[in-house]
Amino acid sequence: MSTTTKPISFARGAPSLDIVDVAGLRAAADRAFATDPAGMTGYGTAIGYPPLREWIAEGHDVDPARVIVTNGSMQADAFLFDVLVAAGDTVIVERPTYDRTLLALRQRGADVRAVELETDGIDVAALQRVIEAGARPKLAHIIPNFQNPAGYTLSAAKREALLALGREHEFTIFEDDPYVALRFDGASLPTMVSMDADNVVYASSFSKTVCPGIRVGYLVAPEELIRRVITIATSTYISPSMVSQAIVNEFCRSGAIEHSIEIVKAALRERAFTLCGALEKELPDARFTRPQGGYFLWVDLPSGTDVSALHALAAERGVQFVKGSDFLLDGGESSCRIAYSGVTPAEIEEGVRRLASAYAEVAAP
Amino acid sequence: MSTTTKPISFARGAPSLDIVDVAGLRAAADRAFATDPAGMTGYGTAIGYPPLREWIAEGHDVDPARVIVTNGSMQADAFLFDVLVAAGDTVIVERPTYDRTLLALRQRGADVRAVELETDGIDVAALQRVIEAGARPKLAHIIPNFQNPAGYTLSAAKREALLALGREHEFTIFEDDPYVALRFDGASLPTMVSMDADNVVYASSFSKTVCPGIRVGYLVAPEELIRRVITIATSTYISPSMVSQAIVNEFCRSGAIEHSIEIVKAALRERAFTLCGALEKELPDARFTRPQGGYFLWVDLPSGTDVSALHALAAERGVQFVKGSDFLLDGGESSCRIAYSGVTPAEIEEGVRRLASAYAEVAAP
Repeated sequence: MSTTTKPISFARGAPSLDIVDVAGLRAAADRAFATDPAGMTGYGTAIGYPPLREWIAEGHDVDPARVIVTNGSMQADAFLFDVLVAAGDTVIVERPTYDRTLLALRQRGADVRAVELETDGIDVAALQRVIEAGARPKLAHIIPNFQNPAGYTLSAAKREALLALGREHEFTIFEDDPYVALRFDGASLPTMVSMDADNVVYASSFSKTVCPGIRVGYLVAPEELIRRVITIATSTYISPSMVSQAIVNEFCRSGAIEHSIEIVKAALRERAFTLCGALEKELPDARFTRPQGGYFLWVDLPSGTDVSALHALAAERGVQFVKGSDFLLDGGESSCRIAYSGVTPAEIEEGVRRLASAYAEVAAP
Repeated sequence: MSTTTKPISFARGAPSLDIVDVAGLRAAADRAFATDPAGMTGYGTAIGYPPLREWIAEGHDVDPARVIVTNGSMQADAFLFDVLVAAGDTVIVERPTYDRTLLALRQRGADVRAVELETDGIDVAALQRVIEAGARPKLAHIIPNFQNPAGYTLSAAKREALLALGREHEFTIFEDDPYVALRFDGASLPTMVSMDADNVVYASSFSKTVCPGIRVGYLVAPEELIRRVITIATSTYISPSMVSQAIVNEFCRSGAIEHSIEIVKAALRERAFTLCGALEKELPDARFTRPQGGYFLWVDLPSGTDVSALHALAAERGVQFVKGSDFLLDGGESSCRIAYSGVTPAEIEEGVRRLASAYAEVAAP
């Protein structure tokens, strides 16, 4: 990479600073310290900052006893897996899926079964065939909205079919939903946890609506499961950051979060639109589905394309992306994940030009 | 307990709000958002907020690569135990010791051996006898300053003897030192990690010098060990709260922490003095060692005193403390831990009067 080439990252699933409401966060922090210094500076408890727990519970129309607020949602996932997944347990994941989820499950010795993700979500019929062939899943990990890495969204019909399958075969659905608030257009689909509260564990996060560095996520689950997670959380860290959570609470209750989400969505919509247009123009071999929201676009290149070589040649041109194969147990060698959350439209256009130039070199006969 | 009796807690090892520098924290938060919005709101990395990591490293005169900053020091302990302690490994603890440490070690299936804590720290000769009798400890967990629950401090001579024993028998010393900054009088003793950086893992926290609710703690350890902890931390939560850590960083670098420590120490000194005086006057059967710092006083009552009954009778009078037996694998039935960190001198005097009245009932022939 030339020293004068400005690096452009399509790799990091994180927002650029210009779409983080720093002024709003600063004001929320100031109000939080003024309003509840005792609650914010004291140990608190493992359930999280109680007013934020209540705000989340209200949003989901559940009892606060069904909610625990954690240091980011990945910490919530880790607690959940510690409670639900023992070595040898079968866990269904989408194919492709979030690489850190794959890692967490494999670290716990789970028998991970990947079921194809279609553009309208996991192939429920294929999942049914896996079960009919003898699999006895304990858990199915699903990212329903604007999936990471694929950007696809689970349809309403498949949500119902998946819940029915879970009830029939007695597995829990882990609805991992950090991107839900980032829909560009159209109406949101109902969450699965709102359709079947007793058979779904729901996780979400404020990383995409407030900021990642605040590290606040949460679980909604049956009370008995929340109690088990609270026990683990208490013995792991006593309590999560009350300071972070009190700031998020102020940010939410003041309405700043609504404004923040509008800013983020407008920027992401424009970035996704720019990315799809640039790919159509510069890289017509790319196949993709326009995302309805979120951070990511999954790009399939013609079968046989050496995406590892493309990755290296793109890096020489100052462009980073994540290889598709990182999100699967096997396969994905001609695909890549393009994150558009952290790059401006101008950077996207320049980045795609560089990517196309690298691709030309890889694809050359 | 009468509805008009104000509860007094000698149970919670936490500061009262009047000795937390809320205004200083609020100002530090404001400056942090203004100074480094990108570093504070972005994901960051599992090592912690880099400027705070550097500040801690400078304070310990070590390379920052030897430091990881976590969501509270108990989270750091958990990571460390995950790396160092397998089921069946022998771990030495002090007798008595922090109840959460006992729990964490037992949850991991460790073979926990408790060695008597004397008023000048762990009985090193007894530890040597345990080793000579065949124990092969992997780790020795030591709270060197103003120990929780006993309030005792490890002498300089015993620090050296313990390090020599660790080198000879190849076990790691885990120096768990959250109270180090809270010495009332006299000079601080050198930390063991400063005496033998390769054989000691050091943990500390900002819970007692900034506030507990901010949840910032850290480890200092050999670089290879820190790298292993970073791997676990990354897959557990990606990164700790950058917002919390950036606020602590501002609080430290602005000098607010020095002022905060002076306020806290002055209050604790007065509280400890008041407590010892009140016990001498109201409960002359109590045996204790005046603490040189910290939050806790360990009280031995005459052998045979039913501290469980005392606990219940004190609760009826609106006074809480923790039974000594909570801090040992066995024994401690006639002892209690009195935390003076969260109570004013007036509350201490009233609390000890109530405790003495409960004791009179238990001790009655």
